[in-house]
Order: sequence, then C-alpha cells, then structure tokens
Amino acid sequence: MTDWLPTLKTTTPEEGYNLAVKLARVAVKLTQPDAEVRDRLRPEYAENSGTLIAVSQVVATHFATVAAANDYWQGKT
Amino acid sequence: MTDWLPTLKTTTPEEGYNLAVKLARVAVKLTQPDAEVRDRLRPEYAENSGTLIAVSQVVATHFATVAAANDYWQGKT
Amino acid sequence: MTDWLPTLKTTTPEEGYNLAVKLARVAVKLTQPDAEVRDRLRPEYAENSGTLIAVSQVVATHFATVAAANDYWQGKT
Amino acid sequence: MTDWLPTLKTTTPEEGYNLAVKLARVAVKLTQPDAEVRDRLRPEYAENSGTLIAVSQVVATHFATVAAANDYWQGKT
Amino acid sequence: MTDWLPTLKTTTPEEGYNLAVKLARVAVKLTQPDAEVRDRLRPEYAENSGTLIAVSQVVATHFATVAAANDYWQGKT
Amino acid sequence: MTDWLPTLKTTTPEEGYNLAVKLARVAVKLTQPDAEVRDRLRPEYAENSGTLIAVSQVVATHFATVAAANDYWQGKT
Repeated sequence: MTDWLPTLKTTTPEEGYNLAVKLARVAVKLTQPDAEVRDRLRPEYAENSGTLIAVSQVVATHFATVAAANDYWQGKT
Repeated sequence: MTDWLPTLKTTTPEEGYNLAVKLARVAVKLTQPDAEVRDRLRPEYAENSGTLIAVSQVVATHFATVAAANDYWQGKT
Repeated sequence: MTDWLPTLKTTTPEEGYNLAVKLARVAVKLTQPDAEVRDRLRPEYAENSGTLIAVSQVVATHFATVAAANDYWQGKT
Repeated sequence: MTDWLPTLKTTTPEEGYNLAVKLARVAVKLTQPDAEVRDRLRPEYAENSGTLIAVSQVVATHFATVAAANDYWQGKT
Repeated sequence: MTDWLPTLKTTTPEEGYNLAVKLARVAVKLTQPDAEVRDRLRPEYAENSGTLIAVSQVVATHFATVAAANDYWQGKT
Repeated sequence: MTDWLPTLKTTTPEEGYNLAVKLARVAVKLTQPDAEVRDRLRPEYAENSGTLIAVSQVVATHFATVAAANDYWQGKT
C-alpha cells in the first residue's frame, strides 16, 4: 500500500467523494490486514443496514476533510 | 452514477439539506451496489428507530460540509 | 414540506438550538415518510435511553452548523 | 424552559464544559418531555458503560461548539 | 472537581492528548457521580472492544478541540 | 509511552493518515493498559465488521485534525 494517498486534492467533488470512500476503507485494511477475513466479513456488513449506515458515516467524516482540503471545489463569494 | 455531484453549491439551505441526504445515500449504494439487496434491507432500517436516527446523523455530518461550502447561504457580518 | 428551511440565521442561540432539533427530525421524516410508522416507532425510541442519547448527538452536530452560521450569535473579540 | 440559553459565552473553559453538558441534556428533554419517564430511564443509562460513553460523546460535540464560540477562551499566538 | 479545567492550552501535543482523555472522562463522572458504580462498570467497558473504541472516539472529538485551541501547536506557513 | 506525539506535522498525507491510526490506538491503550487483555480482545474486534467500521470512524476524526494541522498538505488557492 505504498503511495496510496499522494494528495487530498481532486478535480471534482465526485472524485473527492470517491477518495473519502477510499479513506474509510484503508483503516479497515490496516486493522484487519488479512484479505481472506475481510472477504468473509463482507456479506455480514454489506447486507446489514446498521453497518451500511455506519460506513456512510465514516465516508461523511472523511468527505468533510477532503472538501475542506479542496476549498469546497470553488472560491467562496 | 456519472456526474451525480457536479458541485456542492445550492441556491437555498433546503436544497443543501436535500444534497446532504443524497450524499448519505450514495455511500450505501457504493458499499452495497445490488439494488435488490438494498430494497430488501429498506423495511429493516426504515422501521427501526435506531437506524433512522443513524441515517439522520450521517445527514447532519454532510449538511455541515454543504453549509460550509455555501458559506451558510449568506455573508457573515 | 416546502420552504421549511428558509435560512440558518436565528435571533438567539435558543432558537438556533430549536432549529437544530428540527434539522435532526426532518431526515427521519424523509427516510420514513409514513407518519403512521413514525408514530408507532415513537415510544420505542422516546423510552429508550440509547436512542434518546443518539437523538441528542444528531442535534449536537446540527447545532454546531447552526452556531457557525450565526457566528456564534456574537462578534468574537 | 424559557431563556435557558441566552449566550454561548462563558467566563472559563470549565463553565463552557458545564454548558456543553446542559446542551446535551436539553435534547433528551425535548424528545422525552415526560420527567417521570426520564427518571425511570436514568438508572438504565447511568449504570451502563455504553450509554455513559455515548453521553460523553454528545458533550464532546457540544464542547467543540462552545469552545469555538469563546475563541477557546484566549487569543491565539 | 473545582478548577479542573483552567485552560485548553498545553505545551505539547501529547499533553493535549492527555487533556482530551480527561475531558472524555469528566462527562462520565458528571453523569454517574457515584464512584462505586463507576468502579463496578470499569471491567465491563475496559474489557469490551466496542466500548474501548467508543472511548477512543470521544477522545478524538475532544482532541480536535484541544488541537484547534493550541493552533495545532505551531504556526501554519 | 514517553514522547510518542512530538508533533502533528507530517511530510505527506499518507504519513498523516498513519498518525491518525496511531492516535486512535493510544486512547485504547490508555483505557486498557493491560497488553494481555488487549491481545485477547483483538480477534473480537478485528473479525467483527461493526467494530472495524467503528475503528475507521475514530481514524477519520483524527485524520481531520491531522489534515487541518498540516493545512491539508498544501497551500489553498
């Protein structure tokens, strides 16, 4: 996982959102490095509304950071 | 899902709130891309007070970002 | 629910707090539009300490946004 | 509950912390206005580590707002 | 618990982190003032991964506030 | 654990992310200082999707702080 995060800058808000999703996933990988275990857990959380919403919460927190880093993708008037 | 987020700018706070709701939902779609599974989960979370409040929490986090991006929809004095 | 959020500006901190409570509730309504279902869920969460605290957390997140929008209701020195 | 929040300004950080505790509690009161029910729930959450930590989380969120409103109680160097 | 929080300023980031831990604990004490009950709950949460992570979340929220109060312990360029 | 946090400054966003992971872990160590107990808990949370996502949430909160401390690793235009 070398150089997976060279910058927080993205061209568009949508790319910024995708980066937030990535940022949310990496912490899971670092805490559970075994890909086999993660694959086993996948159905457990992808078919559970509570964990899906929790994932969305993590993405929201990272998106706030990415958006700020990009000055919300535009100058403020 | 191309170009679903061209900008964080909205004309009114209410539109900004609706954008926050959308931002909360997209992460769920990206984590569980199967629409059939999501439909199956819907009653589970839409009729559970805990998950409804959790959804509201994600919306609140995104609304903070959208509001900041719009300078709270007005100049500060 | 037209025009329920014309502005984030309020005259006092207390009105801002009430707006935060409203912001927390609207996301629940948008996710579960059926008023009858929401009424059925009400005792479930209003008599459960965990969900009451979760509601308070959502309000706290929105209050941060509303307070910032109002420059904390006063000029900083 | 008239005029319970005239200002976010406090003289000291400690008073600001106490205000954050108050802000956390009011949302619970507004969601469950029946004092008798709240009294009944009290042992349930005051003797449960999970809910005690959740209360602390709400306080932390409000404390961030109160601290910002008070410019962290001092000029920054 | 008089004068337990004279300032948010600390000399180093590490002291700021310790202050964040303290800020997280005080809310628990204020909500459950009985030291005996807290002692009884301690093993329950200190040996449960879910509550340990929840404590860490509260610390993270307070650390954000303390770090901002200290201008992140250095001037920004 | 002396001098484990000399600064919030990092050279790259990736190093900043790693620091956020560290910040999330230290609070767990301070709350449960017994390494043996922590080792015992490890499988419990590293093989549970809910706690893995909760860890990711704590990391997200700390990453926001570290990113702000580093001015998002670049000047804003």
